[in-house]
Amino acid sequence: MTDYTAPTRDMKFVMQELLDLDAISGLPGFEEASPELVDAVLEEASKFAGGVLAPLNQSGDQAGVRWDDGAITMPAGFVEAYQQFVEGGWNGVQCDEAFGGQGLPELVATATQEMWQAANMSFALGPLLTAGAIEALHAHGSEAQQATYLHKLVSGEWSGTMNLTEPQAGSDLAAVRTRATPEGDHYLIQGQKIFITWGEHDCAENIIHLVLARTPDAPAGVKGISLFIVPKSLPDADGNPGEANDVRCVNTEHKIGIHASPTCTMSYGDNGGAIGYLVGEEGKGLMYMFTMMNEARHKVGVQGLAIADRAYQQARWYAAERIQGTPAGGDASKTVSILHHPDVKRMMLTMRAQIEAMRALAYSASWSMDLSRRHPDSEERRRQQARVDLLIPIVKGWCTEVGQELASLGVQVHGGMGYVEETGAGQHYRDARITTIYEGTTGIQANDLIGRKTYKDGGAAMHTLLAEMEGLASELEASADSGVKAIGEPLTAGINALREAAEYVVRTHGENPAATSAGAVPYLMMAGYVCGGALLGRSALVARAALDGGASETDFYQAKLVTARFYAQHILPKAVALLPAVLAGDDAVGAMSAEWL
Amino acid sequence: MTDYTAPTRDMKFVMQELLDLDAISGLPGFEEASPELVDAVLEEASKFAGGVLAPLNQSGDQAGVRWDDGAITMPAGFVEAYQQFVEGGWNGVQCDEAFGGQGLPELVATATQEMWQAANMSFALGPLLTAGAIEALHAHGSEAQQATYLHKLVSGEWSGTMNLTEPQAGSDLAAVRTRATPEGDHYLIQGQKIFITWGEHDCAENIIHLVLARTPDAPAGVKGISLFIVPKSLPDADGNPGEANDVRCVNTEHKIGIHASPTCTMSYGDNGGAIGYLVGEEGKGLMYMFTMMNEARHKVGVQGLAIADRAYQQARWYAAERIQGTPAGGDASKTVSILHHPDVKRMMLTMRAQIEAMRALAYSASWSMDLSRRHPDSEERRRQQARVDLLIPIVKGWCTEVGQELASLGVQVHGGMGYVEETGAGQHYRDARITTIYEGTTGIQANDLIGRKTYKDGGAAMHTLLAEMEGLASELEASADSGVKAIGEPLTAGINALREAAEYVVRTHGENPAATSAGAVPYLMMAGYVCGGALLGRSALVARAALDGGASETDFYQAKLVTARFYAQHILPKAVALLPAVLAGDDAVGAMSAEWL
Repeated sequence: MTDYTAPTRDMKFVMQELLDLDAISGLPGFEEASPELVDAVLEEASKFAGGVLAPLNQSGDQAGVRWDDGAITMPAGFVEAYQQFVEGGWNGVQCDEAFGGQGLPELVATATQEMWQAANMSFALGPLLTAGAIEALHAHGSEAQQATYLHKLVSGEWSGTMNLTEPQAGSDLAAVRTRATPEGDHYLIQGQKIFITWGEHDCAENIIHLVLARTPDAPAGVKGISLFIVPKSLPDADGNPGEANDVRCVNTEHKIGIHASPTCTMSYGDNGGAIGYLVGEEGKGLMYMFTMMNEARHKVGVQGLAIADRAYQQARWYAAERIQGTPAGGDASKTVSILHHPDVKRMMLTMRAQIEAMRALAYSASWSMDLSRRHPDSEERRRQQARVDLLIPIVKGWCTEVGQELASLGVQVHGGMGYVEETGAGQHYRDARITTIYEGTTGIQANDLIGRKTYKDGGAAMHTLLAEMEGLASELEASADSGVKAIGEPLTAGINALREAAEYVVRTHGENPAATSAGAVPYLMMAGYVCGGALLGRSALVARAALDGGASETDFYQAKLVTARFYAQHILPKAVALLPAVLAGDDAVGAMSAEWL
Repeated sequence: MTDYTAPTRDMKFVMQELLDLDAISGLPGFEEASPELVDAVLEEASKFAGGVLAPLNQSGDQAGVRWDDGAITMPAGFVEAYQQFVEGGWNGVQCDEAFGGQGLPELVATATQEMWQAANMSFALGPLLTAGAIEALHAHGSEAQQATYLHKLVSGEWSGTMNLTEPQAGSDLAAVRTRATPEGDHYLIQGQKIFITWGEHDCAENIIHLVLARTPDAPAGVKGISLFIVPKSLPDADGNPGEANDVRCVNTEHKIGIHASPTCTMSYGDNGGAIGYLVGEEGKGLMYMFTMMNEARHKVGVQGLAIADRAYQQARWYAAERIQGTPAGGDASKTVSILHHPDVKRMMLTMRAQIEAMRALAYSASWSMDLSRRHPDSEERRRQQARVDLLIPIVKGWCTEVGQELASLGVQVHGGMGYVEETGAGQHYRDARITTIYEGTTGIQANDLIGRKTYKDGGAAMHTLLAEMEGLASELEASADSGVKAIGEPLTAGINALREAAEYVVRTHGENPAATSAGAVPYLMMAGYVCGGALLGRSALVARAALDGGASETDFYQAKLVTARFYAQHILPKAVALLPAVLAGDDAVGAMSAEWL
């Protein structure tokens, strides 16, 4: 395993040069988010990620979590690292100051999120889920519930979970069967939940489960589902963990990766019923859960980016160390590190270009999140919210699919050593594999993108995004730098293909959802490749301007120009190639009987 | 883990309907390879693969191999299964009858190979390596060496290995340091070899290592490398394993997958020198090794196909069992198995279409191998050999890259259950990951394809292949079936892109190998997608003709038509999208300094 060094220079580039950080620090409540403060936060976070979390990544993978009679022991060092995480205030970077958070913009929190996920994905999953619980309670909990739970969750002294999945209810939550029977001021919860991330562990003194369950006489389907707070230990009168609740972790899964993240089967109410407190109103559980799920999806998208960057750093280290072969077309008596071989450079650029594109896209969504929440103008808030809603399935779906590919490419750069677990490349490959599955598979994201995000508003948000990108393509085509100008044409081709696909979706989805559904993932991937291409195009324009303005970091900006050009040549054409699959609808998919498969 | 059922119907389709089995059974020595015999062989092989090998796949993965003081214990059941494999004569399907083989065509052996690899890749790696040793000794061993070793290797009583890699010599074998010092009728071998598949195990009574080493005063580089037979136990006067040689397995690797295949570090000559016998002439070791490597590469390509088919069968089983959600655009009160959801069908078709394309391509190469060896006309032998040489890096590179993607898609079909090891989907994902690395990485295959296989003959073999595919495209465009006709256009687009890429390679490689090298993998992948598309196009023509001729298996042939159409819509466009990367040469790759990465 190699070290992790947070890419703070590139993070700052995205926040301050590519996006408009000033627009964020100009928002009410974010006045202190100056470039200097952001730099300081990134600097400290970087130390924590590289110094504390990253060194536990491989040992955590090897040791795994230990289940014993309902209790889970985390791998060595995790409890101490979690303690330091809490003490450093890292759990509440973007949380409301009223509950002890740091109140920083989502944009800044996204950068810290990237660092935690890259340094140690298993560890970072705990706080990721806690953040979801915080958001749900912040938005939908009663004042009393907020007073009881939010301070502890924001600090991280208590952790949170999301309990949705049951053996028969995965992508289709309408099938949830866990029951909630009213009893006085609370409910008694009975049922089994599976795949509960950090459902049990020994890092925090209490665990607050947010559980979807069905009340008696509730209607069938999703409208009968309510959301409950089910603490592992019931808070006593002083707000401290008191009596044990009727909740038990009965199993942890043996998984392909994220071995240090406990994936639990939770049993509620084996002894009569776990005490649960209703959040908000009955029947609105799924709606509330989506509040947190949207942000969790964004964070999982960031995981895709993060694990790819970790794999990139690992591969770069190996490629620079490994001496093998002679330079292509060069002096055959000299051996060089494989980082000089064209095919290895191609692989490294394939990783780097898409990592930069993913970072730009994920951060751009965060930037819009901040504006959607705090901008004084309600119309601008609405506009930014529509952009966020559109981008979230793309960030989640595309960044995780690409992240997985890149983690695999990281193994490939190592050759045979990549297949040997000790190098660490394999862990990233195994860890990354979950990201396209949890918080909604890529197929679920894609169906969200075609249905709720494209068809429902008649393609309005997508056309706004397309127009934004078209403006950029024109700027590129007008550049005096032939390398920058050359990005314009493939970008325009991608934009045109995406527009055609979006128009097909708007035209078709209402009467033939099976047709749009068959091409949904290609449509989502296409959107990702084009958005990424547009943002790298913008980064080329920014870099060109910086160089023309006499910037001192010439290597940094030159590399940006080359990376954007590489993306335009090697990656962007994939977008156009996906169009036939979208436009084919379910021609072949529908004609193929399930029985023939 | 689910069962494995060999796809014998599709194998027969490829051998007898898509390719021309008669052309093979018409070759001298292959007269008995009638459709009936081939069917019988496939039937028996299928029973062995499904009944004996497949049930040991998951238990072997979980148990792994155990190293103890130089000895390796294979997982439970492996020794017995190996014994049955030997007794069934499966080790020598394609081997010379003079040495106890069955003397069947490579085409038939490829089908059995696919079965072993799909059923249990770890197990099948043993015989795969033995086959390499057999080929090398058959082609280059002395009569005495052949008499001593070939019967035992062909039967499988003894197994064989290929010892190339050393810590400092991986892709670049010129760096081999293992020494061979002449002593009487033999040499003393000293050195360490790593990543030796089945280097030690307890399945066979002897292991015959084929070892690359350097003689004293040998020139530097590849021309100083010779090939030696280094038996684990020296054969005694009766040809039985006698005295132990100075060879020791000092370690096995802890790998991402193929846990039941021992990957050994072999130490030769710790006690003075291992006895080794020179094969052929000094200095020709690498050339001899390539004899076996070419076929080993083909077999690894078949692994890519095989593991993808195993993953497909696993995914199909799960998707048919898993009830979740309601039909897209259908009755919302009905739940269905996920195999009916358009996105799941898209994933299954993505797997199926490429599996069929890979099978057709790999078998087509085998078909040419048989003709290249046995055709009475020397010009036809030469023509077929050129086709084989061209196809091997494509089969190896493309089938393994695609196989890996499909094994990942197999996990995706399972959703959360795919990430849990018990389902078995994860094993295929982990096992598949090695295939793009060993026997030459995809980058190495691609460099072979651009240099020796495209540039060296001025693109002649590639243009012959392109012409073959163009003929097919014209037939498709002339079809009266609009679905079949529709495949013609995207195929033609792919062919044209591949021709443009090949012409670029021929034009550029001599003076700027760094440029062609930067686009080598895209060129290889493009060739794979186009060849696969052409063969599926041909399968559509065959299916159409069968249906028009009143064939009774209408579902089978209808599915072929749909699968080919799906490939044309969803997969073939990838070929065209790779062209810009090839034509870009090293524009961006060369401009990116290794230090900037």
